[in-house]
Amino acid sequence: MYPIIPDHLENEIALRTEEIHSQLERHELDAVLITSNANIFYASARYFRGYILVTRESAPIYFVVKPSQLEGANTVYIRKPEQIPDEMAKLGIPIPAAIGLEYDAMTYTEIERLKKVFAASEIRNGSGVLRNARMVKTEYEIEQMKEDARHQMAVYERIPKLWVEGMSDVELQIAIEHDLRLEGALGYTRTFGAQMEINCGSLLVGDNADVPSPYDFSMGGEGMSPALPVGASGEIIRTGMTVMVDMSGAFNGYQSDLTRTWRVGDVPEIAMKSHECSRRILREMEAMARPGVMTCDLYNRAMEIAGEEGLADYFMGHCQQVAFIGHGVGIDLNESPVLTPRGKEKLEAGMTIAIEPKFVIPGVGATGVENTYVVREDRLENITNFPEELANLE
Amino acid sequence: MYPIIPDHLENEIALRTEEIHSQLERHELDAVLITSNANIFYASARYFRGYILVTRESAPIYFVVKPSQLEGANTVYIRKPEQIPDEMAKLGIPIPAAIGLEYDAMTYTEIERLKKVFAASEIRNGSGVLRNARMVKTEYEIEQMKEDARHQMAVYERIPKLWVEGMSDVELQIAIEHDLRLEGALGYTRTFGAQMEINCGSLLVGDNADVPSPYDFSMGGEGMSPALPVGASGEIIRTGMTVMVDMSGAFNGYQSDLTRTWRVGDVPEIAMKSHECSRRILREMEAMARPGVMTCDLYNRAMEIAGEEGLADYFMGHCQQVAFIGHGVGIDLNESPVLTPRGKEKLEAGMTIAIEPKFVIPGVGATGVENTYVVREDRLENITNFPEELANLE
Repeated sequence: MYPIIPDHLENEIALRTEEIHSQLERHELDAVLITSNANIFYASARYFRGYILVTRESAPIYFVVKPSQLEGANTVYIRKPEQIPDEMAKLGIPIPAAIGLEYDAMTYTEIERLKKVFAASEIRNGSGVLRNARMVKTEYEIEQMKEDARHQMAVYERIPKLWVEGMSDVELQIAIEHDLRLEGALGYTRTFGAQMEINCGSLLVGDNADVPSPYDFSMGGEGMSPALPVGASGEIIRTGMTVMVDMSGAFNGYQSDLTRTWRVGDVPEIAMKSHECSRRILREMEAMARPGVMTCDLYNRAMEIAGEEGLADYFMGHCQQVAFIGHGVGIDLNESPVLTPRGKEKLEAGMTIAIEPKFVIPGVGATGVENTYVVREDRLENITNFPEELANLE
Repeated sequence: MYPIIPDHLENEIALRTEEIHSQLERHELDAVLITSNANIFYASARYFRGYILVTRESAPIYFVVKPSQLEGANTVYIRKPEQIPDEMAKLGIPIPAAIGLEYDAMTYTEIERLKKVFAASEIRNGSGVLRNARMVKTEYEIEQMKEDARHQMAVYERIPKLWVEGMSDVELQIAIEHDLRLEGALGYTRTFGAQMEINCGSLLVGDNADVPSPYDFSMGGEGMSPALPVGASGEIIRTGMTVMVDMSGAFNGYQSDLTRTWRVGDVPEIAMKSHECSRRILREMEAMARPGVMTCDLYNRAMEIAGEEGLADYFMGHCQQVAFIGHGVGIDLNESPVLTPRGKEKLEAGMTIAIEPKFVIPGVGATGVENTYVVREDRLENITNFPEELANLE
């Protein structure tokens, strides 16, 4: 047996629980029942199969289905969710008047089942409670992400040594994945939304960067199979192309998100220019982004700069463009807020956002830089401090 | 632009559509609206973001959101599902009286949205339509899985060469992953159920095999982080231990599922015995499993054999045991049918099932073999024909 919440994380979990409490108040809910993997991990710092009930009145209750060896205060083993009300009664916890369930993360079948379990309650969508709670990170969470970034940067520093002339994009990607895994990457990218699928991230070279993909990642690529049409496709890396690396920063349950681009020998002037434009946009975002700023204002300013430089047709894709320039990052690769044309969310201190102004230049490849930042009162803190130049891989 | 269904797959898609039609009839539905990734891939042989409407009356309609470059008969671009009824009207297709939606695969939020789109129809769970259609494979699908198995076996043959004395389980797993990727593995394991998470599969050594995991995989393991508690944990591979490899056979959108176990030097008699018991169970399953046989009968016979040999306490886990000995495999790693104590499903010709009688021996590790089979009229066809002995890695 081992403790469901280890001693050294008790204060941390208390902070997160407070955050959930304040979101319950804002959403006018008495409780939320958590069961999606990412939210279980947020609320307990581990993944287990089961349910966490957070009410405004009491400490969280951990209803565990699996694994069989957890113990601790308020830890109750169940076989199925139908046992939850009885177990609550035994603990003297009243059935909440209004309870939130994770409508945005769980299947229709699972939610319908849970609705029957709480038939006496008013039931509403509780996904926003967790989404908002997770959006602002604790200092512990930020430390985890900084650790991710340190490992990720150690690997990125070795990328020029991993490249061998004549390699395909897939071969270089596999070499980087291998290095990431040896550095401690978990090899699994947790994303929000069942329709996002990716392995250890993406590497894009030449015209493959311009192949539209069905996924909501910032860039496309044909991939290796119509079954998983994203990223590297087997294109040989040649002189005159760019190599964009946007690979996994997932080492500990959190993630950093970091893109760097290299060139192979000389690339056309427009590739150099667009890459510098990405950096100019990042500097502008770093100057603008403060608590209270609306996410749409960041997006629109970035678009404006791309337009000023005559690069709007290549910004955030070319054959297929996406309408965001950044997103929250943390437990999931894609969290709130998203920096979109009409995003009305306001930045808050403690948010962690990846900003990725990228371009696709036909015949050359993708250009641009992505950094992960912490929103601080007086600055954007870059946790991915790594050279940004379009350096020559040769 | 490229065709949504390439010429060489038109007959194949027609076969799958027929299969869906016959399931619609069985489920008394007029249509099903497909949108989950695995089912989109089944119904079109590619993944795109959007919806496929299969009605009993007309050819499938492909409502594509992304990517932007598909074309073909009955291919309609939409931005959002609310456009579907209007587009159906333009095509002269009536709104179905009873439509199935993927309750078991899509979120509550997405299904509620689609229910509004089809407010005039009777709406029921359509997940079973696709689950049943996919359960019986076409010969083309079986060929894909055989190709997966050939690649996977080529890698497994190299495992003894990848092992270096003093390696940890994680290091050997990374070496095998690297080899799998170079062999063409996609590096992503599609599973059914948002709560299943794994990278390229699992490698278990020594007592880590006995650590319970929250996931519904056959075996456990502590993993590298409480965020992803499954599989290899950093345990050093030592003499007297077993090394169980259950890693990715996903090369083309389908998967083969293959487990082999090695020993390091001499292992206790009970490890050798349990491994041979696994093989005995497989031979028995190969003799029994024919169209018409109930899945529970296979499970119960396997349990009986493990009991006869005095190995019930170690069968399908030790500290935490699971109640299945096999499962369908195809696009998802875990498909129907599942071989459980009370499974009333009957085998049918063309089903592809992985059978994995495994043991966990405390102090030693996991033992046993997993093969992927095609159910034929007169036999189980093993597509993972690879030596089964508990061979010495040294």
